[in-house]
Amino acid sequence: MKLYDNNQAPNPRRVRMVLAEKGIPDVEIVPIELGAGGNLTPEFCAKNPFGKVPVLELDDGFCLAETGAICRYLDERFDGGSLFGKTVEDRARIDMWDHRMELGLVISVAMGFQHLSGFFKDRMTPVEAWGKECVGNVLKILPILEKQLADNTWVAGSEFSIADITAICAIDFARVIKIRIGDEYPSIQRWHAAMKERPSYTA
Amino acid sequence: MKLYDNNQAPNPRRVRMVLAEKGIPDVEIVPIELGAGGNLTPEFCAKNPFGKVPVLELDDGFCLAETGAICRYLDERFDGGSLFGKTVEDRARIDMWDHRMELGLVISVAMGFQHLSGFFKDRMTPVEAWGKECVGNVLKILPILEKQLADNTWVAGSEFSIADITAICAIDFARVIKIRIGDEYPSIQRWHAAMKERPSYTA
Ligand SMILES: N[C@@H](CCC(=O)N[C@@H](CS)C(=O)NCC(=O)O)C(=O)O
Ligand SMILES: N[C@@H](CCC(=O)N[C@@H](CS)C(=O)NCC(=O)O)C(=O)O
Repeated sequence: MKLYDNNQAPNPRRVRMVLAEKGIPDVEIVPIELGAGGNLTPEFCAKNPFGKVPVLELDDGFCLAETGAICRYLDERFDGGSLFGKTVEDRARIDMWDHRMELGLVISVAMGFQHLSGFFKDRMTPVEAWGKECVGNVLKILPILEKQLADNTWVAGSEFSIADITAICAIDFARVIKIRIGDEYPSIQRWHAAMKERPSYTA
Repeated sequence: MKLYDNNQAPNPRRVRMVLAEKGIPDVEIVPIELGAGGNLTPEFCAKNPFGKVPVLELDDGFCLAETGAICRYLDERFDGGSLFGKTVEDRARIDMWDHRMELGLVISVAMGFQHLSGFFKDRMTPVEAWGKECVGNVLKILPILEKQLADNTWVAGSEFSIADITAICAIDFARVIKIRIGDEYPSIQRWHAAMKERPSYTA
C-alpha cells in the first residue's frame, strides 16, 4: 500500500497514527507538497478528484480517499486491537465522539487556518470574518471536551479509540490558529500528556 | 427508541430514510423546533451537549448523536440489508463516498443556508461572503458527482448505499440556496428520479 501524505497537515497524521497504533508495516509513504499544489495535478486528481490528502492506494490500485474511511478500513482489515470498538453499542458511542471531533474540531480548525492564514489563497478566497468564527466555534467545543475528559479517561469513554486520534490531530494543529490548551482545561491537559506517551504520537 | 427529529432539516431526514430503507418499526418521533431554539434548552442539551438534531435515544436511555453514527448503528443493529456494504473493500468504498457527500455536500449546503438566510442569527454570526463561497464549493462538487453517476448506478458504485441517502438529503436541501440540478447534470437527474421512486424518499 502507498499513503499519499503530508507531514504538516492534520488529516494525514490521523492515518499515520492508526498505522502506528495497529503496527501495520510496509506502507510506502509518498509526500505531497500542498503549498506548491502537488495535490492539484492531473495525476493526483486521477487518484482523488477532490484533490486532497490523505489517499491510501491499495495493492490492487484502488485509491481510497477520506481520512475517516481510510482509518476504518485499516482497522477492519488489520489485527492489532480495534480502534472503533467491539460491541454495536461501543462502536456507536465511539463513532459519535469521532464524528464530533471530526465535524466539530478538525473541520473548524482547518477552516480557521485556511481563512486566517491565506495559505491556500491561490485556490480559495479566504474570508477573515469566517476564520474568526471558526476559532470561536473551536472555543465553544473545548469546554464540552473538558467535561467529557473529566468524566472519562479517553475521548469516547474508558477505552482508547479513533476519537482520541481525531481529537489530538485537531488540537495539536490548532496551534496555527493560536489556540492552546491552558490551565482552564485540566482534563484535556491530563489527556494530552497521556497521548504524548503513546509511540503513535510522533508518527 | 425515540428520534429527536425535525422535518425540514437535512440531517434528521438521513436517519428517517435509513429507518424506512431497513423497515425498522416502533421508533417514536419527537419533533424539535429549531427556529424557536427547542434544540438549545437545558433538557435537550443534556441529551446532546452540541445542541443539534438528530438524536436517537436508545431504550436504555443512552442518547446517540451525530447522523453518521446513528445511521451506522441502525444498520449494524437491525436486519434488512446493509447500507454500508458487506466486504471490507465494499465498506471502504461506500464509506469514502459517504464522507465525500457528508463533508463536501451536506456541510457546504448547510453552511450556505446558515450564512445566506440568517435563519440562526440568534445563535451565530452569518458571514455572507462565506455563504457565497459555500454555494461555489457545492457547484465544484456536482461535476464530480455527475461523472461518478455517469459511470455508476448509485453514488458509491453498483449497490444502493448510505452514500445515496446522504447525497439526496444534501441535494434536495440545496434548493434553499437556490441550487437545482439542471440539464447539465443528466446522470444526477437520472439518479434523482430513481431515488424518488424509493418509498424511503418521503420518509
Ligand atoms: N474530507 C477530507 C479532507 C482532507 C483535507 O482537507 N486535506 C487537506 C490536508 S489536512 C488538504 O489536502 N488540503 C489541500 C488543499 O485544500 O488544497 C478527509 O477527511 O480526508
Ligand atoms: N454533526 C451533526 C450536525 C447536526 C446538525 O447540524 N443539525 C442541524 C439540523 S440539520 C441542527 O440541529 N441545527 C440547529 C442549530 O444549529 O441550532 C450531525 O451530523 O448530526
